[in-house]
Amino acid sequence: MASLPRSGIQGTTMRDLKWSPTEKAVARKAFDRALQRELEAIIREAKQMAAKIKQPSHLWELEGYLTQRRKEIDRKYDYRYSVLPLVFGSLVREGRLSEEELHGLAEDKLGYIRWQATL
Amino acid sequence: MASLPRSGIQGTTMRDLKWSPTEKAVARKAFDRALQRELEAIIREAKQMAAKIKQPSHLWELEGYLTQRRKEIDRKYDYRYSVLPLVFGSLVREGRLSEEELHGLAEDKLGYIRWQATL
Repeated sequence: MASLPRSGIQGTTMRDLKWSPTEKAVARKAFDRALQRELEAIIREAKQMAAKIKQPSHLWELEGYLTQRRKEIDRKYDYRYSVLPLVFGSLVREGRLSEEELHGLAEDKLGYIRWQATL
Repeated sequence: MASLPRSGIQGTTMRDLKWSPTEKAVARKAFDRALQRELEAIIREAKQMAAKIKQPSHLWELEGYLTQRRKEIDRKYDYRYSVLPLVFGSLVREGRLSEEELHGLAEDKLGYIRWQATL
C-alpha cells in the first residue's frame, strides 16, 4: 500500500495546504484544460456513436454512455482546494494532464499529486 | 367532455373486448409499424443533434432528449389488449397511425380508438 507523501511539512494534511495566488492560477488553468480535453473527447465519441446508429438499441447505448460520462465528470472535477491534489493526481494517472502542466505548484502539493498518480 | 363510445355492445368495457386472430394480426402490424416509425424519427433527430454539438451543454441536451424519448416510448407502447384501443387512439391523434392502417378491426375497437383520437 502506498504511504502518504511526506514532502510537505510533517504533520500537515492536504486540507491545511496553503495555495499562493500563482499556484491558484496554475491550478485553475490545468484543471480547465483537463476538463476541456475530456469534454472534447466525449463530444468526438458521441458524434461517432450517433453517426453509427443503425438500430434503436444503439440510441440507448448512446444515452447510457452520455449519462455515465456526465456523472463521472461531475464526480471527478471537484475544484475544492482541499481535494485538488488528488484530483490532479488522478488526471495525471489517466494521462489527462502532464506533470509539466502543473509546473508552478509547490512540492507540498506535488507530493500528494504524485502519490495519487501512482495509486 | 367526450363521452365513452357506445358502438360496441351496451355495457361492454374495453377490457371485455374480444380480439379475433385477424384483428390481432392487424393490431400487431399497426403497433409495430408505428413504433418503428417513431424510433426511426428519434434516430434521425439524435443524429442531427449529435452532428450539431458544438459545446458540452449540447451533449447533455442530447442525453436529456434520449432519456425523455425512451421513457415516452416505454410508457406509450403498451401492447396489452385491455388498453390497446387507447394506445391506437393516441397514435392516430399524434399522426403516427392512420385509421386505414387499422382496417380490419371491428367497430367495437374502432369506437374506442376514435374516441381517444379526438380527446
